[in-house]
Amino acid sequence: MIRIGIFGYGNLGRGVECAVKQNSDMELVAIFTRREPSALKPLYPETPVYKVEDAPKMADKIDVMILCGGSATDLPKQTPEMVKYFNVVDSFDTHAKIPEHFENVDHVAEKSGKIGIISVGWDPGMFSLNRLMANCILTYGKDYTFWGKGVSQGHSDAIRRIEGVLDAKQYTIPVESSLESVRKGENPDLTTREKHTRLCYVVAKDGADKERIENEIKTMPNYFADYDTTVNFISKEELDRDHKGIPHGGVVIRSGQTGVNKENKHIIEYKLTLDSNPEFTASVIVAYARSAYRLNKEGQKGCKTVFDIPPAYLSPLSASELRKNLL
Amino acid sequence: MIRIGIFGYGNLGRGVECAVKQNSDMELVAIFTRREPSALKPLYPETPVYKVEDAPKMADKIDVMILCGGSATDLPKQTPEMVKYFNVVDSFDTHAKIPEHFENVDHVAEKSGKIGIISVGWDPGMFSLNRLMANCILTYGKDYTFWGKGVSQGHSDAIRRIEGVLDAKQYTIPVESSLESVRKGENPDLTTREKHTRLCYVVAKDGADKERIENEIKTMPNYFADYDTTVNFISKEELDRDHKGIPHGGVVIRSGQTGVNKENKHIIEYKLTLDSNPEFTASVIVAYARSAYRLNKEGQKGCKTVFDIPPAYLSPLSASELRKNLL
Repeated sequence: MIRIGIFGYGNLGRGVECAVKQNSDMELVAIFTRREPSALKPLYPETPVYKVEDAPKMADKIDVMILCGGSATDLPKQTPEMVKYFNVVDSFDTHAKIPEHFENVDHVAEKSGKIGIISVGWDPGMFSLNRLMANCILTYGKDYTFWGKGVSQGHSDAIRRIEGVLDAKQYTIPVESSLESVRKGENPDLTTREKHTRLCYVVAKDGADKERIENEIKTMPNYFADYDTTVNFISKEELDRDHKGIPHGGVVIRSGQTGVNKENKHIIEYKLTLDSNPEFTASVIVAYARSAYRLNKEGQKGCKTVFDIPPAYLSPLSASELRKNLL
Repeated sequence: MIRIGIFGYGNLGRGVECAVKQNSDMELVAIFTRREPSALKPLYPETPVYKVEDAPKMADKIDVMILCGGSATDLPKQTPEMVKYFNVVDSFDTHAKIPEHFENVDHVAEKSGKIGIISVGWDPGMFSLNRLMANCILTYGKDYTFWGKGVSQGHSDAIRRIEGVLDAKQYTIPVESSLESVRKGENPDLTTREKHTRLCYVVAKDGADKERIENEIKTMPNYFADYDTTVNFISKEELDRDHKGIPHGGVVIRSGQTGVNKENKHIIEYKLTLDSNPEFTASVIVAYARSAYRLNKEGQKGCKTVFDIPPAYLSPLSASELRKNLL
C-alpha cells in the first residue's frame, strides 16, 4: 500500500481524499491543516487530522505527501519545505514561475533524496503533455488551446469585488465557430475575442445600480474588456441552486501538415469535459503520486514534471500486464 | 544530427522519408530495400539506396534504423535481427502477439546494448498511451475506441478477393449517435453494429453479377456480417479520382466518475483526424526514434514501448526549455 498524506484541505484536498479511495493500492494516512484539527470534518471521518506543524514527525509514516495549497503563496514555500521529508506532488499553476519553482524544489529534493513532482493537473498537466507530444509528432503545425465551458474562479472573484455585488459566478466558453474552423484544419489566426466568450451570473445587493455593475464588469481590463461578455442578474437562490458546481474542461488541438509538399492535413485533439475541476485535478495528482513513490523506490530523486515520467509508472499494473492489455 | 535509416520502402517508408525532413536534428542516411536498389526511386532522390543485406555493414553510420515492414511476416524477423546492430523502432501492430514480439526483441537488445521500441504509431501507439493514462486518472470508468472515418486496408483487400471485383476501397465509419451518447457520459453498452458502419466503393468487372458481389460482401463473416454495410458500385475512374487517399483516424474516450457517491462525470477524449495514415504513423515513429537515440546515449538498452518513454525524450528541446515554453 502506498501511504498518502494530504497537506491543505480545501476543494482540491477533498478531491484527493475521494481519488485515493478509488485506488486500491493506496491508503490515506493523514490530513494536515492550518485550521484547528478538531474543527475539520473530512469526507471520510476515520481519517486522522493533524496540524501542519506535525507533518515532519510523520516522515516515516507517509510515502507521498500531496500538497493542496494555492500557487500564489502556499506552494512556493510548502513544496520545497515538505520535499525535505516526503516525496511530494503539487499542482503549481503559475506558468511564468514554473522554472523558478522547479529549481527551488529540485535543490532540496536532490539533497533529501526525495521525488517532487510539480505542476500536475490538467493545465498545467495533461494539456501540457498533449501540447508537447503533438508538437513532437507534427513538427510543422499550429497549436490551439480552448478552455471551458467552465467556471473561472479568478473571474468570479473579480466580479465579487465590484461594489454592489453580493455573489457571482463566471463561465468561460469557447467560441464554437472558431473551434470548428480549427478542427477543419483552416489554421485561423484568432484574437482573444474570437477564442472565448464570458458568461456571468451576478447577484446584486438590494438597491444596487445594476447598469453600473454590468458596465464595470464589461469594461474591466484583462478580465473582461477583450471579450464578448454577457451579464445575467439572478437571485441568490438561483445562483445557489443552478450554479453550485465547479465544472470545467477544454481542448488542446494541434493542426499540422505532412508530405513532400505538406499536402496532407492532420488534427490531434485532446478534450476534457469535467463535472468537477478539483476532483479531476486530484485524480491526475493521485496517479502521479504513484509514480513519485515508484521512482523513489528505484532510487531516483529530484524535481520532475509530467514531461519526465514514463507513463507506465502511473499504473498499478506491471509492465507486462500493460503491454498485454492496453498496448 | 541523428542519423536515420529506413528499412523497407512502401507507404510507411515514404512517410518516414517525409517526416525526417521535417526534423532539423535528423538526417536520412540510407534506405534499404529487398528490391533491386537501382529500381527504387526515393521521394528525395539524393538518398542512397542499398540492399537489405548490406544493412549490418552500416552499423556505425546509422543511429536509429526505422523498420517499415509488415507485422504479419516482416517485423517478427526483422526487428530482432536489426536490433543486433542498431537502435530500432517498429510499428508492430498485431495486438495479440505484442508480448511475444517484445520478448524476442528484448532478448537481443539486452545483449547488443541497443534500444528497440516496438508497436509505435497511433494504434498501437498514441491510442494505447491515452487509454493507459485515462485509466490511471479515472480509475472508475469505461473505455471506448471508435475508428474512422478511414480506409481499412484489410477490408478493402477482402472485397478485392471476391470474384468479379476489379478494385475496391472500404471506409470504416463510427456511428455518430453512439459517439454522442458516449460523449454525454451515458456509458452505453454497444454492440459491434452499434459502433461502426462500413462503406464500400467497388469497381466490378464487365458483366459481373453485382447483386451477387454485394451479397457476398454483406454476408462475409468477421469482416462485414456484423455491420451495417453499404455497397456502392462505381467506375475505375471514379475510384482512382475520388478515393486515392489513405485517410484514417478515430477517437479514444474514457468516461469516468469521481466523488464520494460517484456523482461527478468526466470525459477524456483523444481524437485523430488524419489525411494520410502512413504519414502520420511515420511522424509518430520518427519522434520515438529521437527517444531511442537519446536513451541509448544515456546507456539504456532493451525493448521499450510508448509506455516506457518519458515524453520529454521525444522533443529536440532541452528539459528547461520544455518547462518554460510548454508546461
